[in-house]
Amino acid sequence: MAVPTLRNTEAKLQHILRVSARTFAAHGFEGTSMRDISKATEVSLSGLYYYFDSKQRLLYLIQKDTFTFIVERLQERLARSDDPVERLRILVQNHIDYFLSHPNEMKVLSHEEEALEDPFRQEIGTIKRKYFALARKVFEEVVRGRLNPLLDERVAVLSLFGMMNWVYQWHKPGVDPCADELTGMIVGIFLHGVTATDGKFMELPNRVSAEVHSE
Amino acid sequence: MAVPTLRNTEAKLQHILRVSARTFAAHGFEGTSMRDISKATEVSLSGLYYYFDSKQRLLYLIQKDTFTFIVERLQERLARSDDPVERLRILVQNHIDYFLSHPNEMKVLSHEEEALEDPFRQEIGTIKRKYFALARKVFEEVVRGRLNPLLDERVAVLSLFGMMNWVYQWHKPGVDPCADELTGMIVGIFLHGVTATDGKFMELPNRVSAEVHSE
Repeated sequence: MAVPTLRNTEAKLQHILRVSARTFAAHGFEGTSMRDISKATEVSLSGLYYYFDSKQRLLYLIQKDTFTFIVERLQERLARSDDPVERLRILVQNHIDYFLSHPNEMKVLSHEEEALEDPFRQEIGTIKRKYFALARKVFEEVVRGRLNPLLDERVAVLSLFGMMNWVYQWHKPGVDPCADELTGMIVGIFLHGVTATDGKFMELPNRVSAEVHSE
Repeated sequence: MAVPTLRNTEAKLQHILRVSARTFAAHGFEGTSMRDISKATEVSLSGLYYYFDSKQRLLYLIQKDTFTFIVERLQERLARSDDPVERLRILVQNHIDYFLSHPNEMKVLSHEEEALEDPFRQEIGTIKRKYFALARKVFEEVVRGRLNPLLDERVAVLSLFGMMNWVYQWHKPGVDPCADELTGMIVGIFLHGVTATDGKFMELPNRVSAEVHSE
């Protein structure tokens, strides 16, 4: 029997994570058993236990692998530019590129967030906070001195994440703009939306007439 | 044995739909059995079958009830205003109000979209298209003559849905702005983002330097 090399085991783990993400995306974490994972990956149950000892750890590995990849690639890409608008574009492009090519991972991240238990959940929480802090820094640099003072910064950054994270729900390749064009549009809407143009901000329409509220 | 009145059966159905949404949100559609629904709702299996003959029909009823309520309430509210900005605000407020108070339904709608089979899926698709068409009409009225020509309309409207639909994932009552303030911010970001200010549009940053792409 061949002894698995490091390269082989890493490739096999990547295969398992990718196929498992597809299976969780299709049937939900609770609707999927280790036996289903074994069948889908064509790896025996004992083979799977070589990599992780529970379905919880498998879910953790998928989430960790995904976020770590996104954060590390973002850090590398950001290191290449000092221009705040380009850095915002890099953030959005990095996110959209990944999730348009990994819709299953996106589903598992957003749908199975609460399925993960401690201590796994806390660990993933730490990576997510790191990602959010990076995004917030890019945001602060690009809006410095021109952010609409009526906006809450956290709401603004999370609205950007909303635009980016929803894309996988509606994007049809071939019909909708490609990731590159889409990135330009989202950056455009967002940046124009939160900053002043020639020193002028959009007023926030904070009131609906009493009549509409009177129900 | 008392004969159930129409009012009683409707109230009971609403109870079943609400509790089932909570159960599906917690354990996923595939991870939940009719027996689990029976236990959670405290309605016997035969009692449940009085209202629907399958888990598929239950999921369909939850989705139909939710979208129908949102669309009908939106139509009523829109009928009260001719002002395009106020109408956009009504759209956003109607959506955010509902999902901040019904996070389980929001989860079931976005996470179990693909679990629904035909003909249920087609029927829900019809209501969703109606909702999207309404939103698109409100959008077209408010941006008429001042939409950034570099933007794709579909991408713009779906980005607004992204901002609204992601709120349930991050909103912390008491920490984050209330639904009313949040509505003002999202409308502000979006409207300012997609329209011209004093005839000027934000340029879309459509290119990242060659160096960033060269990987």
